Amino acid sequence: MDFKRRFLSLCLMLTIGLLILFFVPSSFSTPDEGMWTFDNPPLKILKEKYDFVPTKEWLDHVRLSSVRFMDGGSGSFVSPYGLVMTNHHVAMGQLQKISTPEKNYVETGFLARSREEEIKCPDLEINVLVSMENVTDRVRAAVKEGMSDAEALKARQAVIAEIEKESLQKTGLRSNVISLYHGGEYWLYGYKKYTDVRLVMAPERQAAYFGGDSDNFTYPRYDLDFAFFRVYENGQPLQTPHYLRWNSQGAGDGELVFVSGNPGSTDRLYTYAELEMLRDYRYPLMLDYIDKFIAALREYAAKGKEQQRRALGIIFGLENAKKAYTGEYQALQDEELMAKRKKEEEKFRQLIASKAEWQQAYGDAWGIVEKTVEANLAFSRQSFYQSLRGYRLPQMALNIVRYVSEVKKPDAERLPGFHEAQLPELKFMLFSPAPVYKDLEEAVFRFTLQLSLEGLGPDDDFIKAALQGKNPEEVAREVMAATKLGDPEFRKKLIEGGEEAVAKCQDPLIVLARQVDPILRRNIKKSQDEIESVLVKAREKIAQARFAVYGKDAYPDATFTLRLAFGVVKGFPYNGTRAPYKTTLYGVFDRACSFDNQGEFVLPRRFWERKDKLDLSTPVNFVSTCDIIGGNSGSPVINRKGEVVGLIFDGNIESLSGRFMYDDVKARAVAVHTAYIIEGLRKLYDAAFLADEIEGKK
Amino acid sequence: MDFKRRFLSLCLMLTIGLLILFFVPSSFSTPDEGMWTFDNPPLKILKEKYDFVPTKEWLDHVRLSSVRFMDGGSGSFVSPYGLVMTNHHVAMGQLQKISTPEKNYVETGFLARSREEEIKCPDLEINVLVSMENVTDRVRAAVKEGMSDAEALKARQAVIAEIEKESLQKTGLRSNVISLYHGGEYWLYGYKKYTDVRLVMAPERQAAYFGGDSDNFTYPRYDLDFAFFRVYENGQPLQTPHYLRWNSQGAGDGELVFVSGNPGSTDRLYTYAELEMLRDYRYPLMLDYIDKFIAALREYAAKGKEQQRRALGIIFGLENAKKAYTGEYQALQDEELMAKRKKEEEKFRQLIASKAEWQQAYGDAWGIVEKTVEANLAFSRQSFYQSLRGYRLPQMALNIVRYVSEVKKPDAERLPGFHEAQLPELKFMLFSPAPVYKDLEEAVFRFTLQLSLEGLGPDDDFIKAALQGKNPEEVAREVMAATKLGDPEFRKKLIEGGEEAVAKCQDPLIVLARQVDPILRRNIKKSQDEIESVLVKAREKIAQARFAVYGKDAYPDATFTLRLAFGVVKGFPYNGTRAPYKTTLYGVFDRACSFDNQGEFVLPRRFWERKDKLDLSTPVNFVSTCDIIGGNSGSPVINRKGEVVGLIFDGNIESLSGRFMYDDVKARAVAVHTAYIIEGLRKLYDAAFLADEIEGKK
Repeated sequence: MDFKRRFLSLCLMLTIGLLILFFVPSSFSTPDEGMWTFDNPPLKILKEKYDFVPTKEWLDHVRLSSVRFMDGGSGSFVSPYGLVMTNHHVAMGQLQKISTPEKNYVETGFLARSREEEIKCPDLEINVLVSMENVTDRVRAAVKEGMSDAEALKARQAVIAEIEKESLQKTGLRSNVISLYHGGEYWLYGYKKYTDVRLVMAPERQAAYFGGDSDNFTYPRYDLDFAFFRVYENGQPLQTPHYLRWNSQGAGDGELVFVSGNPGSTDRLYTYAELEMLRDYRYPLMLDYIDKFIAALREYAAKGKEQQRRALGIIFGLENAKKAYTGEYQALQDEELMAKRKKEEEKFRQLIASKAEWQQAYGDAWGIVEKTVEANLAFSRQSFYQSLRGYRLPQMALNIVRYVSEVKKPDAERLPGFHEAQLPELKFMLFSPAPVYKDLEEAVFRFTLQLSLEGLGPDDDFIKAALQGKNPEEVAREVMAATKLGDPEFRKKLIEGGEEAVAKCQDPLIVLARQVDPILRRNIKKSQDEIESVLVKAREKIAQARFAVYGKDAYPDATFTLRLAFGVVKGFPYNGTRAPYKTTLYGVFDRACSFDNQGEFVLPRRFWERKDKLDLSTPVNFVSTCDIIGGNSGSPVINRKGEVVGLIFDGNIESLSGRFMYDDVKARAVAVHTAYIIEGLRKLYDAAFLADEIEGKK
Repeated sequence: MDFKRRFLSLCLMLTIGLLILFFVPSSFSTPDEGMWTFDNPPLKILKEKYDFVPTKEWLDHVRLSSVRFMDGGSGSFVSPYGLVMTNHHVAMGQLQKISTPEKNYVETGFLARSREEEIKCPDLEINVLVSMENVTDRVRAAVKEGMSDAEALKARQAVIAEIEKESLQKTGLRSNVISLYHGGEYWLYGYKKYTDVRLVMAPERQAAYFGGDSDNFTYPRYDLDFAFFRVYENGQPLQTPHYLRWNSQGAGDGELVFVSGNPGSTDRLYTYAELEMLRDYRYPLMLDYIDKFIAALREYAAKGKEQQRRALGIIFGLENAKKAYTGEYQALQDEELMAKRKKEEEKFRQLIASKAEWQQAYGDAWGIVEKTVEANLAFSRQSFYQSLRGYRLPQMALNIVRYVSEVKKPDAERLPGFHEAQLPELKFMLFSPAPVYKDLEEAVFRFTLQLSLEGLGPDDDFIKAALQGKNPEEVAREVMAATKLGDPEFRKKLIEGGEEAVAKCQDPLIVLARQVDPILRRNIKKSQDEIESVLVKAREKIAQARFAVYGKDAYPDATFTLRLAFGVVKGFPYNGTRAPYKTTLYGVFDRACSFDNQGEFVLPRRFWERKDKLDLSTPVNFVSTCDIIGGNSGSPVINRKGEVVGLIFDGNIESLSGRFMYDDVKARAVAVHTAYIIEGLRKLYDAAFLADEIEGKK
């Protein structure tokens, strides 16, 4: 499963103003539920259910040992020398960027046999959450009585930008104000940011992603989905006391475990009307888009081996997204689940209605959400197609065009993404030295322009501005042939040249971005003023209503920020029988042989060559009831002692409904067992020195 | 999956007059569908779809190489010396009967190292279908114009008894008239009957039934579910040219294969009203009965190791039935499947209604079926509880009481089961020397009496007759303490003593049987006169209507007689991914290790001890689209050349809806791969001589 952020963003782009809600379980039978913030861990449940109370030291250590991959996913420090463990599929973007037609590390894997051989990633940013401050009062105070919804939203955005900027200047930390519990609380998160991150080791993708798209999002599973990076500071490996000690025994059946990572987003308390909108409108739109995107990329990849290499990562991401959306879409079509959600909402609203002051304060929120969502369906669809997509360059062009004008405005008045505190990250991405493939850019741009044309028709103003009377094929070909934006130096010069340089620039992609920008800005304004501002207020009411009725013993919906989940290692009913809590290396060979070692089930040659050296009873993957979702990829699985016992890389097919509702009967988090990583390092990859480092043997 | 006949009978006992229908696919897109009789194999489909036309010789050879186990299941000759292959779970009843507290062959397995060591089974009858004659005209001619439904049924039964008796006397063959296509055709089947059958080899049950009830009816699967018997004639191994040559390569992915065996029963063309009755009435009743029965047996088995051994086979059968019924019940609750069936029926009836002569001849049948079924729901429920169940002895007592009076009547007037041609089999079972366990008999009898009491209340005439004012516990204890029916000699003497001896007999179980028999006879009479006779006629109309509308390119519903199914070796979509077409020995060890070699997933010690000798890539089980159901257990899987490539032992969980409708998307027949049997014989069981025999190497 790709818990990568890129496709979550894709999805967030389409949220048509549906912001993140929070979740309070309405009947509290203490399931292993929740993605808890570190300021509010579920101490009571843990005590009552598992007789375990993590100390402040335990929590701080786990938090400071956990990392976030800004290009998608989670990870953890596993040695005192800055060694970071994550998934191969989280590392894949960087693997692809450092690969060449001659050296395809995605295919062959990579091992640095010394520090000198470690390869610096072109644009990888890793974050550690070092400070958390509740700034709810300050954010709230910015909204004054009598403000319209739109004014209130602007005031809130302004004060958030201000807080972030202040913090950045004062601490140098990546400073993000996070809205939790849907505006129930605002927190300033300070992240220590590392951008000198080097690749240490990755297995072949065929070992990491054994079973391919077929086995993706399923369990029983047999994947070696790990990779190691090393964080450097001032040119030296980071020395840190905050790393997770390694336990190759792993966790036993029924054992309590934790997951510390960055779940991307959940929709657990969308109103019923919103779920219907997702079901009837958004998911069909998304799935259609993904299908067509995959088809376009397959056409491109069919042109040759190098094209195949270039497209592999995107196709993987899209297939992964398709499988996830399909599962979520099925959950939305599940009459039982929907009926349950409807009933819960009805019960909740009856409780609100039962008390006059509640009804007065919150009672109208559901109606407002429903009305706003319904009233803007056509606009949302239009916005979806009025979008400059492509692969990397078109978005870069748009960011450059906007950058030079936005930075001249007072911070409070800038577009989202261009506030002072957000500029370092933006520039990091804009100036990335990662290679640009123009033929791939052209293929994707042609496809996205075509999609927009089909969705909007030739008379649409976005289409007119983007195509200027030509067809998508011509535009993509001409623009990509002539643009110099593939060169990071050129991008840098444009930014440095400011508004004047960009205005004069005749690069065809910059010209195109300038032409469509006003239309896109118009959409952003309408979206903010007429949709988001209204929904934010209505959802805040629902949030407050929940606090009023159920209290605050709850966790917020996922926000791609650090969370702690807990659960037990446990099989589940499946396929008419039981799925075991773990799989073994025997199973790896069984699945390969069962498919005659073909297609997605080819096992790399080294497995066959070294088979007799392997202990085939070595646990490979295992499952737990921990509550995770996309973004958690690469998260460590941790035992009571704070030792790492596994590496989250997926959820099973039954977990896909978890976007809307937690289930501990069949939904499971899937992890690589620590024993498999050690067995692999020592016996398959001749990387005993690395195994020694993480096992603390040197 | 237990394709054993015993529990099919259990189920048939409850059919409340629902007889077997036949099936004509209404839209013919040539799926791999059908359980075809050998007189009407699907030559056209095979030619068109697979370019294969089995010759008459091919068909005759396969038929004469196939056997039926009268105590449940199928098998085949696999050597010229009368060696018969079937499933361990088909053999289990006999294994249990020849076991003792000291020698538990179910647990340890068994291997005869010479002919002398082969153990004769106490009451195993094996049949080979040697002749088939269409007797439709003669049966039809017995029903005269103007007869009432009840008279017609009697006339039909009388002529059938007559045909069977004549045939028996003339040929000495087991002679059965089979109603196919629900009276569309009647066939006289002549079976060569073997009762000197000796056990040659069986693995430990834990290897054969690895994964237990959990894995039962599922795939991927890892079972060594085979056993070998040898058929003797005149004290010598049967010499036969009709045996299947062995192919240890098995069948490849996508290969055409056949299954020759005895599917027990299907309900593929029940009317929609009948399906509703099954769903709302019969399945809940059955599942409740099975649940309680299992609970009673578990209580008994908990008393000690020997009790556990005695109860094992029945518990297995019940759990197996429960899993099958549960799957079938779910199919009935599947709205999509039911809607499809309803639509098909409506379309069919519209076609009938479109032609006046059809409507005139057949149009009223559906209404009659529905009305008859509905009108008799209460009676059916009562009959279900007014039944002398117990384990073995109560039914024997009833058979003895009936035997002595029935045999004095003209053949035509006897109860079903007591016709002249049926007596040899009846006596074979009645005089079986298999051990009787009185404590087990008591436990089951107590349970069944209790069930009847709860279902009927104390004032019911059956209850009064059976309990005579006592409670079930007292009756079961007293009766089983005093009865001598456990002794086959005593049973023989009673039969020989005739009506007078039985009338005088003070054995308490005989007394009890005498007391309830009139009530049970009353029920049989009502069931025949008022239900079965009406339904037989109505269903015959529906059958004729189908012939009229769709022609006769069809196969009949299953009747525990020899059928030929065909299909391809093929995986299927499952669990969000794909199930492979085969599994391997690696998978056996994986599944054991995944469950820490515990519980249902313990692998016998020899597997661990001899692991390094095994080729772990050996195929273990495989799946095909062949259309099978309970009764097919032990059937050979055969390739185009007529070689045996596998051994049917189960269907996957998705195949359970096959009782009502064939599906080739997800439903699969599960077989043991021939390579696993050879690998097991040679490397696990030191039975190379047996492997040589079946591989034709000696």
